[in-house]
Amino acid sequence: MRETLQTAPGQQTWKLTLAYDGTDFRGWQVQPRERTVQGELQSALGRITGESPLPQGSGRTDAGVHALAQVASFALRAPIPAANLQRALNGKLPASIRVLEARTMPDGFHARHSATAKTYEYRIFRGKMCPPFLARYVYAYTWPMDEGRLDEAAGIFVGEHDFHSFAATDPDLSTRHGESGIEGQVQDHSEERSTIRTIFSSAWTRHGTEDCEQLVYRVRGNGFLHHMVRNLVGTMLDVARGYLRPEDIAGILAARSRSAAGPTAPARGLFLHSVEYE
Amino acid sequence: MRETLQTAPGQQTWKLTLAYDGTDFRGWQVQPRERTVQGELQSALGRITGESPLPQGSGRTDAGVHALAQVASFALRAPIPAANLQRALNGKLPASIRVLEARTMPDGFHARHSATAKTYEYRIFRGKMCPPFLARYVYAYTWPMDEGRLDEAAGIFVGEHDFHSFAATDPDLSTRHGESGIEGQVQDHSEERSTIRTIFSSAWTRHGTEDCEQLVYRVRGNGFLHHMVRNLVGTMLDVARGYLRPEDIAGILAARSRSAAGPTAPARGLFLHSVEYE
Repeated sequence: MRETLQTAPGQQTWKLTLAYDGTDFRGWQVQPRERTVQGELQSALGRITGESPLPQGSGRTDAGVHALAQVASFALRAPIPAANLQRALNGKLPASIRVLEARTMPDGFHARHSATAKTYEYRIFRGKMCPPFLARYVYAYTWPMDEGRLDEAAGIFVGEHDFHSFAATDPDLSTRHGESGIEGQVQDHSEERSTIRTIFSSAWTRHGTEDCEQLVYRVRGNGFLHHMVRNLVGTMLDVARGYLRPEDIAGILAARSRSAAGPTAPARGLFLHSVEYE
Repeated sequence: MRETLQTAPGQQTWKLTLAYDGTDFRGWQVQPRERTVQGELQSALGRITGESPLPQGSGRTDAGVHALAQVASFALRAPIPAANLQRALNGKLPASIRVLEARTMPDGFHARHSATAKTYEYRIFRGKMCPPFLARYVYAYTWPMDEGRLDEAAGIFVGEHDFHSFAATDPDLSTRHGESGIEGQVQDHSEERSTIRTIFSSAWTRHGTEDCEQLVYRVRGNGFLHHMVRNLVGTMLDVARGYLRPEDIAGILAARSRSAAGPTAPARGLFLHSVEYE
């Protein structure tokens, strides 16, 4: 049974699409005495409308993780034209958070529960020296590696798999707010939480010039576990570096143990690219 | 009489070329209890060589101002291959400061006194909404303006002029460290400091896509007064906005008064582009 956004009579459901530079935030989720994206958004809404609904994100992003198009939903009593709400929010929010779109939605829309697919991007800098203006947005990975093995490893994740080995072991998160360390649409709030996810596409592309080359991993799936993309990337880098073989990945998936997989790649290279709805 | 870098016997003069994101620094110049680029560099040199010379910059950059190729000079006793010093510095410095080049120089080389020309760039964002990943590096100027008048105004500054009206009124800076608020090569440490500078080129170019258009001002001269580029840009924007006419600029130069010129454009759009030596 899924929770839906409780929209009281006279309230309107809203959907915001947001871009943010996650560097200076302690992640998406509101926390006491910490600067978070959700907290900044709630505070800006309060100053504009006098109401302070807690916007629900399509998923939490960790400290330092960026978003090109995060989606948030909430309900407001105040009648306000969408263009005005967008403009007012961009006036109150710091320049590191921008509202790309604001629109009203039918009752029952929920940024997380209504999502059908999400896409993440992970950016790796491969030049000799990472320009200071790029350092917040890439993982500067300067070690020699066999880039062809990245492609081979990425292909293995496509399909339905149990990604338990790639999920953060998060005892804290798993009890907080009735959610598991797992984020994504497949949350049923039962005791046993599934770590099975379907990956629709998973591939690397190359961008930029010889001096400023970037490797960009894009992965689209029906949901992602906490730290899953960063753990997939850390493991693929171990494959490209020669610490693991591509054929080891099947065994890592089967192990259902975080310690079987590679390290967690740094937050700064990760972007929530987009969220899809029906 | 110009001061030169005092290189003691057995010392080697060094030249570093640096790029930095100025956002998180209180400018170039070392200050007690503040994070500055010069301070970070001195500290890194101390940790690597055991010597802590104060690197002399080609000029100070203010808090929030960036550099694509700032130049610094200092002397070291420790013999160390240039490539090793560069690598070691990049290992100790934060990712927001990069040493692009390290090389030894003949005695007497001084980053500021030996400079023959400097180029600055000022970047203005003209799209509807400034992406959060660009916000630290541009001035998002969304007002309607006549961009053609920017070009007209920029051309007027070429040549030798008294830029007194475009210099910060800096009583504090003018007594500190025997330097005036004026920076650039033309510093004679006499009582009367010249505010005459020669501008070799001054022009705007357009970059980017329709959604993400940038106007970039590039100015090259034999020296620049404190805040001069930001005050030139602020004044040109007033012209483009219609608050001033291009033909007012001659009168502003003649007035020799800061209050005659336009406002100081924000630091975040300014980049020290390059420094030239004979």
